[in-house]
Amino acid sequence: MGTSCYTTSSGQTARLLFRQLFEKESSTYTYLLADASHPQKPAVLIDPVDKTVERDLALIKDLGLNLIYAMNTHVHADHVTGTGLIKTKVPDVKSVISRASNGKADCLVEPGDKIIFGDLFLEVRSTPGHTLGCVTYVTGDGPNQPQPRMAFTGDALLIRGCGRTDFQGGSSVQLYKSVHSQIFTLPKDTLVCPAHDYKGFTVSTVGEEMQYNARLTKDEETFKKIMENLNLPYPKMIDIAVPANMVCGLQDPSVSASI
Amino acid sequence: MGTSCYTTSSGQTARLLFRQLFEKESSTYTYLLADASHPQKPAVLIDPVDKTVERDLALIKDLGLNLIYAMNTHVHADHVTGTGLIKTKVPDVKSVISRASNGKADCLVEPGDKIIFGDLFLEVRSTPGHTLGCVTYVTGDGPNQPQPRMAFTGDALLIRGCGRTDFQGGSSVQLYKSVHSQIFTLPKDTLVCPAHDYKGFTVSTVGEEMQYNARLTKDEETFKKIMENLNLPYPKMIDIAVPANMVCGLQDPSVSASI
Repeated sequence: MGTSCYTTSSGQTARLLFRQLFEKESSTYTYLLADASHPQKPAVLIDPVDKTVERDLALIKDLGLNLIYAMNTHVHADHVTGTGLIKTKVPDVKSVISRASNGKADCLVEPGDKIIFGDLFLEVRSTPGHTLGCVTYVTGDGPNQPQPRMAFTGDALLIRGCGRTDFQGGSSVQLYKSVHSQIFTLPKDTLVCPAHDYKGFTVSTVGEEMQYNARLTKDEETFKKIMENLNLPYPKMIDIAVPANMVCGLQDPSVSASI
Repeated sequence: MGTSCYTTSSGQTARLLFRQLFEKESSTYTYLLADASHPQKPAVLIDPVDKTVERDLALIKDLGLNLIYAMNTHVHADHVTGTGLIKTKVPDVKSVISRASNGKADCLVEPGDKIIFGDLFLEVRSTPGHTLGCVTYVTGDGPNQPQPRMAFTGDALLIRGCGRTDFQGGSSVQLYKSVHSQIFTLPKDTLVCPAHDYKGFTVSTVGEEMQYNARLTKDEETFKKIMENLNLPYPKMIDIAVPANMVCGLQDPSVSASI
């Protein structure tokens, strides 16, 4: 990701403003993070949904924040992303997705990249397996970064579960490796903030999922078998959502451009 | 509330474990709080729903917590409380509701009472108006208590809104006074944790609601007119939920007893 996507550090002590937002139809969580102590109050939105863009932008306005990035953990198959719509309403916002997703966005991030907002940052970790381009965004490691850390895992790791692996370049073997090498290696108190929950849970921790995740606590072979035998129906939104989400949720590709 | 309902302070530094849980059908939030650094890990549940009791108790077990109180902010009209069902599964749990609600429970709390779990406590504030017996539970004020404070407002104060005032001894004048005198007097960074949200918001702050609440930022006369002209339909669950919730959600009154 180019350095033009970064904001300049102000040197102030950072204070995280955090909000979790829910879209009921697709059970999607959108996350708002901001450096509230920075004079510009820079903010990022992770996994916004097209249907709730008005709500999210109204909240950002109320809180006096300055949205700089609208990010996706992956090309979603169950809802249309709000990033493109947000860009039509707040033109300075930059859309973010992984380069590996083959999606279009202003910033195509790679593993190890830092997405900086004020004095806070998110680190990009590659966690493919649900889709070929899934990433997990993890809050920074350091004395001025939020404690405990927070991992925005998309569909790679859900609370007591994980995303399916039978579409969009998915692979159960890859997902198993991703979660174990990139998420379960984080401190145990790291908060797990998934893209969805269908049972009303809002958050978990790495330690909890290492102990109680119904699928990912199994050995790799058992996990693979579980994933092969889920017998899930064809995703009802996939034929609409995926083509739209490859271009920030808007079918007009002029709205976003690959860097 | 009798002192028998209190746990003994251990003298250790308290660490709040907090989880927000959602019940989709009635858009109800249940809150789990525990003193995670206390050897007994005592926990309380605020506004549990009958349909999600299994989920809540499984989470409590996973986290190694010891549930001591199952509390309601008021006699709900839109869902059946889980407190009675919890008591049948975990007999040592005590149910809690306000004395003013006229509901039955093991502990009938009054304004100013403290509900102690380990080295943490919740303070009871009287916030009638949605119903005659509504209370707000507020985390303790003191150096060893969570910062910022958290207010579990039930239906008295919702995010950018408030509960209706046309049933169960409701009064718009009383609700206005309750919110302004008991909630808006808390520090502005106090987290507002309501019993419901219908738009996917999970939390707000006292400062935010003082500035942006669509109803409670108006003067009392305007607020009264707004509440009189909501033209809301008759609550579809009220005739089932209210009689059940007067007795902890179970029609058999032997499960709970008024103290």
